[in-house]
Amino acid sequence: MQLSRAEISAMEKRYRAAFVNSLSGFKSANLIGTISTGGAHNLCMVSSVVHLGSDPALLAFMSRPHTVRRDTLENIHATGQFTINHVRDEFFEAAHQTAARYEAEDSEFDAAGLTPETGASLAAPYVAGSPVQIGLEHRQTIDIELNGCHMVIGEIIEVRLAAELVADDGSVDLGQAGSLVVSGLDHYHQTRSVARLSYAKPDLPVHRLSA
Amino acid sequence: MQLSRAEISAMEKRYRAAFVNSLSGFKSANLIGTISTGGAHNLCMVSSVVHLGSDPALLAFMSRPHTVRRDTLENIHATGQFTINHVRDEFFEAAHQTAARYEAEDSEFDAAGLTPETGASLAAPYVAGSPVQIGLEHRQTIDIELNGCHMVIGEIIEVRLAAELVADDGSVDLGQAGSLVVSGLDHYHQTRSVARLSYAKPDLPVHRLSA
Repeated sequence: MQLSRAEISAMEKRYRAAFVNSLSGFKSANLIGTISTGGAHNLCMVSSVVHLGSDPALLAFMSRPHTVRRDTLENIHATGQFTINHVRDEFFEAAHQTAARYEAEDSEFDAAGLTPETGASLAAPYVAGSPVQIGLEHRQTIDIELNGCHMVIGEIIEVRLAAELVADDGSVDLGQAGSLVVSGLDHYHQTRSVARLSYAKPDLPVHRLSA
Repeated sequence: MQLSRAEISAMEKRYRAAFVNSLSGFKSANLIGTISTGGAHNLCMVSSVVHLGSDPALLAFMSRPHTVRRDTLENIHATGQFTINHVRDEFFEAAHQTAARYEAEDSEFDAAGLTPETGASLAAPYVAGSPVQIGLEHRQTIDIELNGCHMVIGEIIEVRLAAELVADDGSVDLGQAGSLVVSGLDHYHQTRSVARLSYAKPDLPVHRLSA
């Protein structure tokens, strides 16, 4: 089947959202934790966290247009801090629930039945039970004029995870961590390792390092 | 275990790259196809494709700093086109091989043993056998001054996939498609569906739509 721009544009709005949200491929399932200047916790499901660089260690996520109240974005700009917490199967339904449009004074932790916990380096809350918890300082928000979205960039200042998840080469075993992936808007998946592959070089075919 | 910014900064370079590349969570495995103004095909593995919006349908990916030759970036800027192709297990080793640093005149298709195919709307090549093939027109490149990376944004002008992958609500069954995910720099995974969840509302707990 081949679909043109005109056919995609003519799709019913929710159908198109489900379709186009599927096209990027599987996405990481993360909860972003923030705190307001008044001390209220906020939690928000995102599937757009992306690696930007390792030195300095930078992650980014996409925020929808700031034309309505966006607690996460406002808290990050007010406090300069946020956390990223991997979602695993024990609490993915609660994580998804945080996407509901709660009042500003309501904590999504309470509403979804999740527990905040605090690290050594920042006031923004982590999600208890998350296998990989990352604390970040806000570095920049880039406004994307094409559609009014915002790219929020943070530098990693703290990482909390079980030491046994980190392999000898520094890689983190996300399958062992139980980190989930999302497709489209609402479809959650577990993962099964296929293989690690060797570093790609022009004159040497890649080979499997482990299964 | 809790790691500070100073401890991450003090890591050996390759160890830190493997560690920080793991922290975003699982990533989509995609091949970006481009063509040079001289007609040479180029193919490049990326794990940073992200959904930006559905109307217009925008996807973006991150490119490393343009301080050395970057065929993909140069071709996109010269021709205004690129393709995104989901990677599945039949050819993930060939896909990984495209990350090797080939000469500009060499086609990664030939080097990796992959076959280009052409769609109706653009000259940039798709990857034969990829279950989800997306053709895009370049809209904007945003330079990220924090570390010299570039965010490349394209608008979807063509999508090629099997009709049976698209559900009644528009979502694409990426598990059925066989689209793979990557963790870190080199670890490939298949997925297994856990559940689709209902749309989150404040006063109604989410429930499973299907397994």
